[in-house]
Formats: sequence, C-alpha cells, structure tokens
Amino acid sequence: MFYMTNGAAGPLRVTVWGENRHEQIEEHVARIYPKGMHTTIAEGIAENLGDGCAVRTATLDDPEHGLTEEVLAGTDVLTWWGHAAHDEVVDEVVERVYRHVLSGMGLVVLHSGHWSKIFTKLMGTSCTLRWRDAHDRELIWTVDPTHPIANGVPHPLIIEEDEMYGEFFDIPAPDELVFVSSFSGGEVFRSGCTFRRGHGKIFYFRPGDQAYPTYHHRDVRRVIANGVAWARTDRTERSHPVLLRYETGEFFQGQGYTGPLQ
Amino acid sequence: MFYMTNGAAGPLRVTVWGENRHEQIEEHVARIYPKGMHTTIAEGIAENLGDGCAVRTATLDDPEHGLTEEVLAGTDVLTWWGHAAHDEVVDEVVERVYRHVLSGMGLVVLHSGHWSKIFTKLMGTSCTLRWRDAHDRELIWTVDPTHPIANGVPHPLIIEEDEMYGEFFDIPAPDELVFVSSFSGGEVFRSGCTFRRGHGKIFYFRPGDQAYPTYHHRDVRRVIANGVAWARTDRTERSHPVLLRYETGEFFQGQGYTGPLQ
Amino acid sequence: MFYMTNGAAGPLRVTVWGENRHEQIEEHVARIYPKGMHTTIAEGIAENLGDGCAVRTATLDDPEHGLTEEVLAGTDVLTWWGHAAHDEVVDEVVERVYRHVLSGMGLVVLHSGHWSKIFTKLMGTSCTLRWRDAHDRELIWTVDPTHPIANGVPHPLIIEEDEMYGEFFDIPAPDELVFVSSFSGGEVFRSGCTFRRGHGKIFYFRPGDQAYPTYHHRDVRRVIANGVAWARTDRTERSHPVLLRYETGEFFQGQGYTGPLQ
Amino acid sequence: MFYMTNGAAGPLRVTVWGENRHEQIEEHVARIYPKGMHTTIAEGIAENLGDGCAVRTATLDDPEHGLTEEVLAGTDVLTWWGHAAHDEVVDEVVERVYRHVLSGMGLVVLHSGHWSKIFTKLMGTSCTLRWRDAHDRELIWTVDPTHPIANGVPHPLIIEEDEMYGEFFDIPAPDELVFVSSFSGGEVFRSGCTFRRGHGKIFYFRPGDQAYPTYHHRDVRRVIANGVAWARTDRTERSHPVLLRYETGEFFQGQGYTGPLQ
Repeated sequence: MFYMTNGAAGPLRVTVWGENRHEQIEEHVARIYPKGMHTTIAEGIAENLGDGCAVRTATLDDPEHGLTEEVLAGTDVLTWWGHAAHDEVVDEVVERVYRHVLSGMGLVVLHSGHWSKIFTKLMGTSCTLRWRDAHDRELIWTVDPTHPIANGVPHPLIIEEDEMYGEFFDIPAPDELVFVSSFSGGEVFRSGCTFRRGHGKIFYFRPGDQAYPTYHHRDVRRVIANGVAWARTDRTERSHPVLLRYETGEFFQGQGYTGPLQ
Repeated sequence: MFYMTNGAAGPLRVTVWGENRHEQIEEHVARIYPKGMHTTIAEGIAENLGDGCAVRTATLDDPEHGLTEEVLAGTDVLTWWGHAAHDEVVDEVVERVYRHVLSGMGLVVLHSGHWSKIFTKLMGTSCTLRWRDAHDRELIWTVDPTHPIANGVPHPLIIEEDEMYGEFFDIPAPDELVFVSSFSGGEVFRSGCTFRRGHGKIFYFRPGDQAYPTYHHRDVRRVIANGVAWARTDRTERSHPVLLRYETGEFFQGQGYTGPLQ
Repeated sequence: MFYMTNGAAGPLRVTVWGENRHEQIEEHVARIYPKGMHTTIAEGIAENLGDGCAVRTATLDDPEHGLTEEVLAGTDVLTWWGHAAHDEVVDEVVERVYRHVLSGMGLVVLHSGHWSKIFTKLMGTSCTLRWRDAHDRELIWTVDPTHPIANGVPHPLIIEEDEMYGEFFDIPAPDELVFVSSFSGGEVFRSGCTFRRGHGKIFYFRPGDQAYPTYHHRDVRRVIANGVAWARTDRTERSHPVLLRYETGEFFQGQGYTGPLQ
Repeated sequence: MFYMTNGAAGPLRVTVWGENRHEQIEEHVARIYPKGMHTTIAEGIAENLGDGCAVRTATLDDPEHGLTEEVLAGTDVLTWWGHAAHDEVVDEVVERVYRHVLSGMGLVVLHSGHWSKIFTKLMGTSCTLRWRDAHDRELIWTVDPTHPIANGVPHPLIIEEDEMYGEFFDIPAPDELVFVSSFSGGEVFRSGCTFRRGHGKIFYFRPGDQAYPTYHHRDVRRVIANGVAWARTDRTERSHPVLLRYETGEFFQGQGYTGPLQ
C-alpha cells in the first residue's frame, strides 16, 4: 500500500541506512547479504512501493555516515539498521537525525536498531530486552488489523527462524501496537510499534538479525514498505517545534524567546 | 482506596527539588515565596499526605545539587521545579536522576520543568510550547475522572492568574491525559499528563510560574500530593531494566551481555 | 489531503447521513441550510476530495433511513449528524450500521451525533457532556500535528460562534486525540478523537450545531474531508470479526463455533 | 503505596459473580471446583487482600442473578465469570450492572466473560477471538512492570495448562496493556487489559477455563486480587455521568436537559 497525498507531490524519498559491518567481517552474513543488508532492505522497499518511491542507501563508513544535512533534507523517511557499532555513530550525526525527525522526517527502526543512539534518544528509555540467538521460529500476529502498516500482511506472518527478542522491552507504551510476536521458546514481544515525536512519525519493527535471511522474506519486506509509507508526513514543510510567546488575542504570530529573566 | 503491596512499608519519602534562583534574584518572587518555592511545595505535600510522607528539599546550589546517590536511593518520589538555570544542572546529576527514574523512582515535573534536562531526556522531544505572561485565568478541567490524581480536585480547578502555556506542547502522547487547561486568552494545554519510563512513573503538572502564588493554592497542592502518591512505585526493589540472554526454556535466569560479535 | 491505495481502487464512496428535521421544523435552520445540513456537509466533502470521492446523502425519513444493506455495502465511509430524533432511528438499522462498522466501514460522527444510538453503542459509555447554546467562539487546537486529519488545518481553527460542548465528555480515552477546543466561556473539549472498533475506523468531530453556519466554514469542511479520507479502511474485503477454533499448528483455517458445552 | 482518599474508608466490598452451570452439569468441573468456581475465586481474593476486603458471591440462579440494586450499591468491585449461559443473563440486570459501572463500580472480567453481555456492551465491539481447548501451556508476560496489577507477579507467570485464546481479540485498544500471553501452540493474546468507562474502572484477565484448576493457582489469584484493588474507584460518591447545561461563567451548577427543540 502507498499513500498519495495532495501536497506531498513526487515519489517518497527513502534513505536506507545500514551499519554494514557484519557483512564485511562475518562470512556467513556476507553469504546471505552479498551486497549488504541495506541493499536488500532497499530492494524490498522498491519492490513494494515501485514508482511511488525513490530509494537510496547510506552506511556507517560513508563520510558523515552518509547522513549529511543535504541528504536528510531530501529524505522523507529514513530506515535504520545497526548492531555491532552503535557507538561509532558520532553524536553530531545523531543530533542531526534527531532534529530532522522532530521536524518531520519519518524513521523506521529495524531489529537491533532498538539500541541505537537515535532510537534510545527518541524513546527516553533504555530500550533493553531479553534475547537469544537459537533459531527460534517467530510468529508475528496483528493486533491492530485496520492499521495501514498491517495491510496485506498474513496473520500470522511466519518467519522460520530468527533471533528471539522477549519482554520486558523497555520502551514507552507505544502510541499504536500493531504487531505482537511469539517465539518457539515461548517468549513474546511487542514487535510492531508506532510513536510520534515532534513532527515525526516512527515505526519500530523487530525482525532481522544479520545471521538469518529475514530481509529476503516477502512479508517482512511488505511490512517495512508499509511502515515507510506510513511514516511519511503529510505536512508540506519540515519545521522543528519551537517555543514562542503569543500576545493575548494573537494566535498565529509568535515572538522569539528572549530568556527566563526580565 | 489502597493497594496491597509487598513491602512499601513506611512513609513515602519525597524530595522536592527547587532551582531557587528567582527567589534570590527577584524581589517580587521572594515576597511570594520567602522560604523558596521548594519549601512551599514541600509544605503542600506534607499538608495533604501527613504522616504518610517524609518530605525534604534540595536545591541547585547544594553540593551535587543536593541529589547525591545516597539522597536519590532514599527518595521514592522526586519533584522538580526549574526555569532560569536549566543549563546549570550538571549532566552527571541528570544522568543519575535519569537512572533512578528508569530504576523505579517516581518523578513529578512542575511547570517550567518542561524544559529541564531531565524531562526532555525522558520525553525524547523538544518539550516546546507557546506561552504568555499576562495574568491569564487558568481553568483546569478533569478529563479522566477515575484517575487517582484527580481525586478530590474541583472540576474545574480555578487559578485566578498564572502564566499561560498553550499547544502545541511537543511531548509524546501521554499514557494518561488527566487534565486539560484553558486560559482566558483562549489557549488550551494538556496540563496533567502521566508517562511511564522503565520502572519509573512520571507526572507532569503545568501550573506554577514563579511570579504568582500558585503553590499556595489549596487545590494545586492537592494535585501535586496526589501526583506524588501516584508516582510511588509498588515494586519493592529499585532495579534498572537490563539486556540479558535467556536460554531456551530458561525464563528466570538471564546471562549478561558479552557483545555483538561472536 | 486524500489517500490513494493500491487495493482500494476507485473513488472513496461516502454516504452523508442527516437527520434533516430541524431544517424542516425551524425556519432559522432552514435559512442557513436550505437544502438540508446533509447536502452542505456532502458538498464540503466533495469540494475537498474532488474526483477522489463519490458522495451521496441519506436521511431519517427515507425508507430504512436510506441505509439499506445495499447502500451500506457500497459505502466506504458513513458520516452521521443527528440531534432531535435519535430515538426515531430504528434499532434494526442501528444494528446494521454497527455490523458494517465492525466489518470495516468507516464512520465520521459529527457534533450532536455524540448521543446517537450508533455512537453510544460503539463507545460503550453515556457520551454525556456539558453544553450551552450562547454563541461562544470556539478555538480548535491541534495536539497531534502529524495526524492526517490535521493536515492543512489552521492552528487554531477559529469558529466565530457555535454551541459550547464541555468536559467531562464521557467517552473512552480516544486512541488518538487530534484536536482540543476552548470556548469563550472557558470550557474545553476533546473535539477531534479517533477510535478503532473491530475492522472499522471512527472519527468524532465536535462542531456543527444546526443554528450556526458551521458546515459552510472552509476549515471545518477540510477537517471532515480529512476525517472521511482517514476513516477509509485499507482492507480490501469487508469482514466481521469472528470467533473460531484453531487446531494446534493450524494458524489460518479456523473452525466454526459449536457451543460452550461438549 | 497508598493514596490519600477522601473517605473510601472500610474494607473493599467485592462481589464475585459466577455463572455456576458447568460445575453442576459437568462432573470434571465439579471435581476441580466442588463449591463452584465463584467460591474459589472469592477465596483467592480474600487470601490476598485479607482484612482489607469483604467478599461475597452471587450466581446466575439466584433471584435477579444475585445482583439486585441493593447488592450493587454495596459493591465496590464486581468480578464476572460466565460462559455457557451468557444469554440467560436478563437484560434488566445487565443494564443495572452497566449503570453501576459507569457510576463508579469496578469490574473485573475473567476469561470467557469476554463474551458476556456486560463486557461486549462496555467495549462496543464483538469481543471475538481464536481459541483451542488442548491443554496449552500459557506464559503470561508483564509488559507494564510499574502497573499495580503486575505487583508481585512472576515474569513470566506460568500456567501449566489451560484453554488457548489467540489474537485477533476484537476489543478497543486497551487504555493500559499489562500482560501479553503466549501459548505452547504459538498464539499470543493481550491477556491483561484495563479500560475506563464513565466513572468505572475495568480489568480484563484471560486465564480460567472451567476444565482446568486455574483459579487455584497462587499467582493467578494474586493478579485477580491486584485487579480488584486497582478497580476500586477513589471517588467517594457513586454518580452516573450526566448531560447538563451550564450558563456562561457558571462552572459548577448545571441545569437539567429539557430536550432538543426550543
């Protein structure tokens, strides 16, 4: 599914960010994702959104991690996969992404991105969880069947094997809980969650450990594409929320803040 | 109403934190709050909770802002009022308070505390708003009449004059919206909001600009005391959420994290 | 703004339901809405959604209130305005609308529709409120700026005069709170609320007493059109939630219920 | 933790309602619950709340199902278990219970009570789900660890065998999601949910098919007792939400409704 909106003319501009380290270091990951996980994720989005989107990729080792001001300004929705090198993402870039999210850029955080600097900063919590890497089968159940992100997704969506993530997942109560997963070991996880922060929309989706071919899965790709389409804002201008003074009876023209003391 | 709890025996231990700068710098504030705003807030809590609580105060100019590890470990609920000197709160103390909140300490944030380092860090947003200091009358309406924080609160609660705060208030959608205010100028504000972060409960309550006698108001004091009582956790141990590995079939004994690469 | 979706081909089919009694009985209403309020509401939707929608109207005095099984089956989103004659809506039609909503038909409830049989049945509450008909100015503030229903809506949206509705509004906490209103008398109201029930999406929007020209207001029309676009489901088939038995390991083929006793 | 309350003095008055049919008709149920399921549930509440509560029982075959106006007026929290005979509960009693819930009586709905007249009326949805009676192991995971209802509950709570309930559970998005269950067959279920309706607080808790000894389980009893304690309102008077007219500037004294036409 994709949205066409009046004002948001043109295709949805997506930037797929990938850490791209496991693929270089670990042969078993490189075999699954020879062009990098980011490339596979990007292909899955393009496969679903077609001409409705324009997808590019960026990785940790690019200058400024590929996330310059110019790139972000031209990105409607950013997707994020990171794991082994969260700490190597420089704070300046995190601040830049944060500012763009609050200003209206959509963000789709995948799997181990739960512990990225940008996600924990937006959540305000530890984003910790329980986990196990033991080839669990994951069943993803839809608990919000009218949500656009659930559109066209099997109930349940079955992933033959992937890493396990279990509760308690230390996130704020999501604005919308779309999916809940169970694992063959018996754990459960709130695996599809939406959050709104500032003028930005955020979707977290659980599947996708690097050691499994999860991003080749047709239905997983559909969910990610749905999430990307949903996260695009309808607002025509990107603007950061701002603190302004408004005189009595003046509702539209605020004044700049000049400090706490008279 | 009371809850059966394991062992939350003893009085509720409250620490009222006050920036305490306006009271020293501005005579008109000192006249309203001769012993400091924090003292008045503390008195209001004690007035309502009586023997059920033990209240102390701490201020910015105390060593470590009065918020040592020992003080926080002995605090069930911390209240926070700051305004002119948010930037002077050192990051180390903010991190300490943050860690205690995620571990189970309750937090009640008052008025201009919306822009404090600790609140914005827990929210993950800019916490900006519109404002005006022009003696607006504030009417605080209860939209969640069964919430414990609304217990015994007039509908509406009338504050003859205070600063105006208006929407858009850039916070995450609150877990529970308890109060909504209108101002004589026509603005509205989500003025009583709860949030859960980690193992901690947070209540934000709007009223209380330093230039008005708001914390002497009987009903405002009642709300703050209700909020303090609500924010106390039922959990008997303070513990930070943690990321652990659990073997298949082992649900209670997790293993420490040893890094992302094998 | 409007959504185009992959599967939901063709224009959005809207049925605007109007009680159409005040317009016949009260001359001052007839002057404002000479063709009936439903016609004006329908025109406002068409004005905003253009070729993207096909709008028809139905009223209380039509056979079966104009809401036959065939009409509802061909309706993506139903809008509802009623007031003086809620009790005259026959239960059979209410049940039929209810079933279609749970099966996926969108519903936009306007103003005094808060006390309609269909809305109270979907809410499970009394839907009572406080009110006054005294030419209050209403200011509608957006508290969820990324919501599609808020797209292109002024902040605040100003209605020079309308009836007042105030809290406590006895509804379940909305899934999404989009708008909050203040009135010149000082009351506040959660004036734009979304709810999901079964496979259906519901939007309640407050303005529109029959004695005021509210549905001629450009921005009010925009909100209603946005709400209609939002309430359209992405699901391709209309289906009622059903209770089924699933054998172990069989996730997709449920069995019919055969009763509580063996 | 305790709340300062106006005057909710005295023990929490609980009425445990049981359908009490399976116990009479099916020998295998009678063996597990020789005094009826309601008696076992009542004992579990008393075991946890001790002197803090006064528990009585009522059943379907009592005159007026044991739920006279007098009984409900003297009940702080009602618990509900029904299954085979939902249809035999007369509408007049359902209306009476409904009115008391909206007026402030707490309600704890257990297991197959999901399809009771009172629960579906309060939810406004079909409350359908998927199910299987095949001795699944249920694991109940806490996703809201600061919620009073989760206090002292193991994570996970393990039930060796019970009926399976799976998603999609057609309820409104709960105000608070406290527990999520998985079953050995792989299904998940939102098994602990709170809802506020009018002045009443509602808790739904999943476990407890009649063919299993679930209500003898120590931790299940703890959850039910926690839910009962939570559902008690803080409001001192039972009052139904009411629609009233308020003159401009008059916030506390509303006038009765006199009809929609002048």
